[in-house]
Amino acid sequence: MFDSVIYNCAIITVNPRFDIISDGVIGIKDGRIAIVEARDANQPLPLATDRLDAKGGIIMPGLVNTHTHLPMTLFRGLADDLPLHTWLNEHIFPAEKKSICPESVYAGTLLACAEMLLSGTTCCCDGYFFEDDTARAIAVAGMRAVAAQGVIDFPAPGIPNPSLNIQTASAFVDKWQGAYSTITPSIFCHSPYTCSSETLKAAKKTARAKDILFQIHVAETKAERENCLAEHGVTPIKYLETLGILDQKTLLAHTIWVDEDDIEIIAKNGANISITTESEMKLASGIAPLPEFIKAGLTVGLGTDGCASNNDLDLFRELDVTAKLHKVNTGDPCVADAETVIKLATIGGAKAILLDHLIGSVEPGKQADLIIIDTHKPHLTPVYNLPSLIVYAVSGADVRDVLVSGKAVVRNRQLLTSDVNTIMADVNRMRITD
Amino acid sequence: MFDSVIYNCAIITVNPRFDIISDGVIGIKDGRIAIVEARDANQPLPLATDRLDAKGGIIMPGLVNTHTHLPMTLFRGLADDLPLHTWLNEHIFPAEKKSICPESVYAGTLLACAEMLLSGTTCCCDGYFFEDDTARAIAVAGMRAVAAQGVIDFPAPGIPNPSLNIQTASAFVDKWQGAYSTITPSIFCHSPYTCSSETLKAAKKTARAKDILFQIHVAETKAERENCLAEHGVTPIKYLETLGILDQKTLLAHTIWVDEDDIEIIAKNGANISITTESEMKLASGIAPLPEFIKAGLTVGLGTDGCASNNDLDLFRELDVTAKLHKVNTGDPCVADAETVIKLATIGGAKAILLDHLIGSVEPGKQADLIIIDTHKPHLTPVYNLPSLIVYAVSGADVRDVLVSGKAVVRNRQLLTSDVNTIMADVNRMRITD
Repeated sequence: MFDSVIYNCAIITVNPRFDIISDGVIGIKDGRIAIVEARDANQPLPLATDRLDAKGGIIMPGLVNTHTHLPMTLFRGLADDLPLHTWLNEHIFPAEKKSICPESVYAGTLLACAEMLLSGTTCCCDGYFFEDDTARAIAVAGMRAVAAQGVIDFPAPGIPNPSLNIQTASAFVDKWQGAYSTITPSIFCHSPYTCSSETLKAAKKTARAKDILFQIHVAETKAERENCLAEHGVTPIKYLETLGILDQKTLLAHTIWVDEDDIEIIAKNGANISITTESEMKLASGIAPLPEFIKAGLTVGLGTDGCASNNDLDLFRELDVTAKLHKVNTGDPCVADAETVIKLATIGGAKAILLDHLIGSVEPGKQADLIIIDTHKPHLTPVYNLPSLIVYAVSGADVRDVLVSGKAVVRNRQLLTSDVNTIMADVNRMRITD
Repeated sequence: MFDSVIYNCAIITVNPRFDIISDGVIGIKDGRIAIVEARDANQPLPLATDRLDAKGGIIMPGLVNTHTHLPMTLFRGLADDLPLHTWLNEHIFPAEKKSICPESVYAGTLLACAEMLLSGTTCCCDGYFFEDDTARAIAVAGMRAVAAQGVIDFPAPGIPNPSLNIQTASAFVDKWQGAYSTITPSIFCHSPYTCSSETLKAAKKTARAKDILFQIHVAETKAERENCLAEHGVTPIKYLETLGILDQKTLLAHTIWVDEDDIEIIAKNGANISITTESEMKLASGIAPLPEFIKAGLTVGLGTDGCASNNDLDLFRELDVTAKLHKVNTGDPCVADAETVIKLATIGGAKAILLDHLIGSVEPGKQADLIIIDTHKPHLTPVYNLPSLIVYAVSGADVRDVLVSGKAVVRNRQLLTSDVNTIMADVNRMRITD
């Protein structure tokens, strides 16, 4: 007897064999997937308290967004098409100074969660300030997340005195570790050029002591690489290695400007990668060497980055653009094929943020973090190949139902956990005006 | 007294000043825009038979898709992630041979029109075979189009004897010229390497005689350029110029592998360009030099290409990806800014297909080809900048209402001109099986 069964669906399992079941059944018990199997038309459906008819849609693991700054939904479209320096110093930093507070972080995060759940992302990996308020909003929204308090050696929202940055991050971890089933705390150092070597080492030491994920932006721009070479005599990746920052519980974001040696260093240390293709394109940072990362056996996930630089949180767009960008960048239409990018956005992302024991595939024992895609639409007709459809034609708006730990959070495109109109009104009220 | 007024909307006019009206009114009479103005809260709405409350949404010109092969919706996802040669010779050509007939072309086009209208495209420029059936379907769907019968020096669907290719194209033009208000016929030569110089000259001569648009794929791949240099001693663009093909009524598609001299030749002759960013990325053809085209003053539009190589017809995705691709490709986040790419997808496209006297902007005298975007959604909140929102956050699924010549063709996301379920069932029945 299951708590619920889902039937009348194709299933992209993303199990190690990447099995696709054309007419499947999923049984859920205590929030976990209990069975995943092809339906036997001669057998009745398994007994269950609830039945969910997927109406011929596609079920796949909820997408995993490995890099974002959720409250930055507040700044969606505030400043675009500008040089990085102007964008940051004249728009984003002043806006953060003006409007980032516990209330706005909470409201912006609720908005981000609404957007992510409605576009099929069930888990994200966040890093920002006032992260306690972010984590509270994520919990209310019914999402799963790795949530990290940001560490930077400058006065930051909520941490006017940077000498308290690690202490604040540490207190955040202590509060949330083991406190709520779907929230896993983490520490996020902004970058090697905004945190001193002492800060980086102390933050990683804290993360190691608490056995949590350590996140950092690194090797994002050509200038960062050149400055690091000038200042430290080594590349940003080599610099992190010498500080002892790289290991299997470190996630590197925006890691673009790396050479073969850097990739070997990352591989040797087992560090993980988050690629945020659209944000990196929009800011003209560069193109991460995804095919080389894959060849080197690195664990890679996809992310959207914050809304100030993307400007949305629809991870389905990232799949499509990532697949296409690496084809044109390498001149090889076979790289970043549909199956590969689906893995990046599910099991790859889950591994990158250390949650693959819980999520990232539709397999017995995993949490029932599932999405149902409604394929009965002109732009999804006809269907020849499910992975291709997912990557090249589906968008977030095609997600009809979403479950997290077996609990419905979106049904028929309606968010069940919060009132979307109230969330939007709250953020609109906090809109920055001159 | 207008036939209809639309109110409670922001308007992105795409007029020469790129005016944006934050609270506007549009009056429509006899299918044309009669007035576009800011609303005076102290005045009643203009008198009209119908009133359409845009509910705070954004109105902009219907998007113009300048390059597509509509019936190829039949092959959406049939073959992906393959080398160009394998994709074409082992999958697409055999599929065309097996399934392209008047009935499938008609059904595939209806599906394409449903998808385009539901994602905000009101006008497209098509080229394929059995174009008479394509044109009939476009008319039924209530779209506007430039429709071209394809010319190629090989046996093609409907033209087993290639010596009849121009005659067939000419007969198509004669049948449709002036026959139906929203359909403008055209001739489409496949490419300089699949049509002889005699065919190219004769086809262009026919197009000139009938005063219609001539379309051609040219300079799409590096190999095409190299082969042309080897065979003719000149680049593909120079080759077309020597044949007298280039003029203000010629549209060049997929024009990627061009040098400075080529761009100057295109500019000098006044020929127009269609860029299909996503298709060109997916097939790894290359990146068109859009910033150089703009610098040279060329008329440029955007297109989706056919569904076999994209795999959707959502032009909003093209805006987003085009803006981002050229930023990362040039290393300059200021190129392909939001206003620029909106112009490409509206007035630029209209100019490129010679319809800018009718469409491409929201201005008095133009046809009322309008779309209303529902911005009351989490991923479109908050709103700081309308062009940025359109390019970086809106997708086709956000289009709520669509008018062509003042007539509602989509209302509340429901297609009014055809039954979407029947269209999808027809195409599913024609699905290619091994």
